[in-house]
Amino acid sequence: MPDSLLIIPRWVVPVEPEGAVLEHTAVAVRDGRIQAVLPTAQAATRYPGYREIHLAQHALIPGLINAHTHAAMSLMRGLADDMPLMRWLQEHIWPAEVKHVSPQFVKDGTLLACAEMLRGGTTCFNDMYFFPEAALEAALEAGMRAALGAIVIEFPSAYAADPDDYLRKGLALRDQFGDHGLLSFCIAPHAPYTVSDESFRKVSRLAAELDVPVHLHVHETEDEVTRSIAEHGVRPLERLRRLGLLGPGLIAVHAVHVLPDEIAMLGGHGCSVVHCPSSNLKLASGFAPVAALLAAGVNVALGTDGAASNNRLDMFQEMRQAALLAKAVARDAAAVPAHAALRAATLGGAVALGLDSKIGSITAGKLADLVAVRLDGPELAPCYDPISHLVYVAGREHVSHVWIAGQAQVVDGILKSPSWSSLDSRVEVWQNTLSLQVVEH
Amino acid sequence: MPDSLLIIPRWVVPVEPEGAVLEHTAVAVRDGRIQAVLPTAQAATRYPGYREIHLAQHALIPGLINAHTHAAMSLMRGLADDMPLMRWLQEHIWPAEVKHVSPQFVKDGTLLACAEMLRGGTTCFNDMYFFPEAALEAALEAGMRAALGAIVIEFPSAYAADPDDYLRKGLALRDQFGDHGLLSFCIAPHAPYTVSDESFRKVSRLAAELDVPVHLHVHETEDEVTRSIAEHGVRPLERLRRLGLLGPGLIAVHAVHVLPDEIAMLGGHGCSVVHCPSSNLKLASGFAPVAALLAAGVNVALGTDGAASNNRLDMFQEMRQAALLAKAVARDAAAVPAHAALRAATLGGAVALGLDSKIGSITAGKLADLVAVRLDGPELAPCYDPISHLVYVAGREHVSHVWIAGQAQVVDGILKSPSWSSLDSRVEVWQNTLSLQVVEH
Repeated sequence: MPDSLLIIPRWVVPVEPEGAVLEHTAVAVRDGRIQAVLPTAQAATRYPGYREIHLAQHALIPGLINAHTHAAMSLMRGLADDMPLMRWLQEHIWPAEVKHVSPQFVKDGTLLACAEMLRGGTTCFNDMYFFPEAALEAALEAGMRAALGAIVIEFPSAYAADPDDYLRKGLALRDQFGDHGLLSFCIAPHAPYTVSDESFRKVSRLAAELDVPVHLHVHETEDEVTRSIAEHGVRPLERLRRLGLLGPGLIAVHAVHVLPDEIAMLGGHGCSVVHCPSSNLKLASGFAPVAALLAAGVNVALGTDGAASNNRLDMFQEMRQAALLAKAVARDAAAVPAHAALRAATLGGAVALGLDSKIGSITAGKLADLVAVRLDGPELAPCYDPISHLVYVAGREHVSHVWIAGQAQVVDGILKSPSWSSLDSRVEVWQNTLSLQVVEH
Repeated sequence: MPDSLLIIPRWVVPVEPEGAVLEHTAVAVRDGRIQAVLPTAQAATRYPGYREIHLAQHALIPGLINAHTHAAMSLMRGLADDMPLMRWLQEHIWPAEVKHVSPQFVKDGTLLACAEMLRGGTTCFNDMYFFPEAALEAALEAGMRAALGAIVIEFPSAYAADPDDYLRKGLALRDQFGDHGLLSFCIAPHAPYTVSDESFRKVSRLAAELDVPVHLHVHETEDEVTRSIAEHGVRPLERLRRLGLLGPGLIAVHAVHVLPDEIAMLGGHGCSVVHCPSSNLKLASGFAPVAALLAAGVNVALGTDGAASNNRLDMFQEMRQAALLAKAVARDAAAVPAHAALRAATLGGAVALGLDSKIGSITAGKLADLVAVRLDGPELAPCYDPISHLVYVAGREHVSHVWIAGQAQVVDGILKSPSWSSLDSRVEVWQNTLSLQVVEH
């Protein structure tokens, strides 16, 4: 059990209420939870014996939630860049996956992703990939919170033979680990163009039965929409609506090519959208209408997507990108202000995952997933508004401390778990293996 | 005089030829210049007595060139965000400038900017601001290369009374410091909407006489174009063409709202465009057509703009942003590949400033403005392609060493000059002064 702590930062940015910045405020942590957010002057008296952590130049924020990634793809970071989507997938990513993806690949790749995400202030990630049991193992070794997707796709892989096999394997994991404090589960049908109506119907039924979110890529590219019209007579979101998938449990990733009535439909059904701005730019998918989605009441979260199409698992980058890009897309410099981007990266992710009663803000009673960000030095001075600085100025390199359920995972920028010692050499082996394929190709 | 050095990195990325990555290669530096780029195996024999610097995990790149900034505005970093351009300017930035801008403000603000830029691998900046003599002083104290703009604007300021006064003061600086090895000069008429035809004619004549570039904002917003048509009957670039300003000496900053024939005109006249992607997004100015500009033969450089509209002076961020954004704008994932973004941030800036015979690439005979970037750790592993990693993965925090004319200014991430000791406290004084105004407002 971790220590009881009194964290005393320069600023507490609790995210709820949105835009709040608290000074002279301490956060008491006990048994992995936030026990109180209270005036520093009263803290030591009310919580004697708690270990005090003074962070005089820091903002304390809720842990960042990466609401869409394929963590294991970190091993393919920069394997193939600057090429059209289908060539990238068909000539590089898919062949590499067919040849190399195994439980060990997923374990090592996810561990690498966890190391990167933890050092960058991400405390929770929503994963979609083959062999989720290996990602689960990595997350637990790293001490990270994870939502694991029971992936569903029509194509066989080294992991599973058919949609039923995928579902069975993914959900068995949930049966086994459903009670683990760091874990939650989604059903993750890959995308409208890789999943049949029959499979979607099963997903819809099971998600309702088990009360788990449904995590899928949707309306990412124009081509996806065109193909859906050709094959199903309707655009993907309308197809999903008919199949019963629209609702508060839907985590719609990307939502780049959405029309005004589709935006209204997502809002009306209480869906969440995971905006992945770097990935949408890098693959030339387009510009998601984030300001319009927010205005329609859609819960917006942020994700990095996999490292092969980003090439960083860096939620600070996605916050900045989301806030900047939305302004030019909406032609309004006031669109998606800094606090809205921070909310999307924290509470927005928690709502999407159905975890907002547990994480996403610095609120007494929630789990102590906390991140300290150091806001001094020539890159960050002067500081008129810490929330503006968190989004527009700070980078992941300014993260000094990370706690997950009250357990320190990063202290002064250093990863604490012993799991990391042999990671470098294992990643090097994978790099050599995958490089060989690049040469062969 | 600095040491004679043999820098032996893991990779040399010389930028010329574009896309080249040299392994087992050393760079010999003597008397502030790059003496040779040669196989490591021969280096110690050919250059005995040179101090060897081994950088086993690093890429060595040319110093980054920030081709458009208002360095002193670093003191207004985040002073006012998330608001429309004219409200931002009229209610916040301009009142702050009228009240506070002085030689001391510019000196301290530019020093702060230099500290930030140096640590981030920027070795040269092209500045446009009031009191350029104070910016000059700061650059020399910081040991940075700078191009200083003789600013021209119709409005009086604490610095100068009228356009002739601005020109006289700015050019006197050039007369006095024209021979300094770290300095060069531009004439910097602010923008088409703040400079008269008469002043532009003087600028054009003087620029030709003195053979200096002309540095100005142009086609930044739709409103600028609309106003020009109303006031001058033509769009700004056509007006500049008629006034004789289009040519290889023109540094056209922003060029967001440019039509195909204007792109062709910029290319045909050999102009440079400075793309400032973060600023264009933050102020909701729009999306510059960078791939089309490059295709038309326009020399493209990158700039951060001032810290008040970015809010970072971070050329790594601008490289990444330029490469990512261009893809979605051009609807082509192959647009502005990593090596093109790196070229824009180095040689592109050198060409714009007329300094490409001296800086911008790692070429024997050029000045030794060099930056080492460390490409290991969980954020950067694996590394299949160092140029991709420099643009899509690395951040300014991975810069370990910076040399300017062979002089080490950053070693292991630490600023070496003694100028930095009292900077923090001076910035704090300015922050308190400017904060008062925010409250009063």
